[in-house]
Amino acid sequence: MASIFEMIIAGEIPAEFIHRDKEVVAFRDINPVAPVHVLVVPTKPIPTIDDVTDADIPVVGRMYAVARDIARSEGVAEQGYRLVMNCRDHGGQEVPHLHLHLIGGRQLGPMVGSCVDPD
Amino acid sequence: MASIFEMIIAGEIPAEFIHRDKEVVAFRDINPVAPVHVLVVPTKPIPTIDDVTDADIPVVGRMYAVARDIARSEGVAEQGYRLVMNCRDHGGQEVPHLHLHLIGGRQLGPMVGSCVDPD
Repeated sequence: MASIFEMIIAGEIPAEFIHRDKEVVAFRDINPVAPVHVLVVPTKPIPTIDDVTDADIPVVGRMYAVARDIARSEGVAEQGYRLVMNCRDHGGQEVPHLHLHLIGGRQLGPMVGSCVDPD
Repeated sequence: MASIFEMIIAGEIPAEFIHRDKEVVAFRDINPVAPVHVLVVPTKPIPTIDDVTDADIPVVGRMYAVARDIARSEGVAEQGYRLVMNCRDHGGQEVPHLHLHLIGGRQLGPMVGSCVDPD
């Protein structure tokens, strides 16, 4: 079954696109955790960063170039932002299609939350 | 003045290296926020992801390939992990030399903490 991101890329589910090319798309997260919260997603349905092959690495690099440019166009580059890529359960990955969170527009707190103690 | 990461790369400050090649090094964070907390750092002293040029993008891709491989060798790939790149003040970047946090080994909390409310 296609993930929700594949359906968004295919235009079957609406999203607010900020960037779109053959390899990489970007759209706003529908549950933003900060004033700017954009998802940068490869069009190729790679499940996680652990599934990325060496041949896929240039696309990962391009995701970061797209994120850098969107941070500028969203006006958060100067004050700063956070780029997060979650992998599987412990990382808190919610959609099994590789994606990068671009989060900014306010001072951000800890990188891994403060609500969960180590096991 | 050289950042602490430049001094680590030059061998002037000790660190526990996990990976080292001409372009990318990795060593353990001295203030880990989880059982596995590794920093993946380009040897080129690029201050932030916003300063990365298109010519630097392949090195950014390589940082993610190195992180993927270290997650496997550290035994956290299957359960998952988080990759975080902070940019400047709002992101919480502490050293002005591009770096990627690989964090895993336990269930991680929110991506931007819960202690700071939106402005």
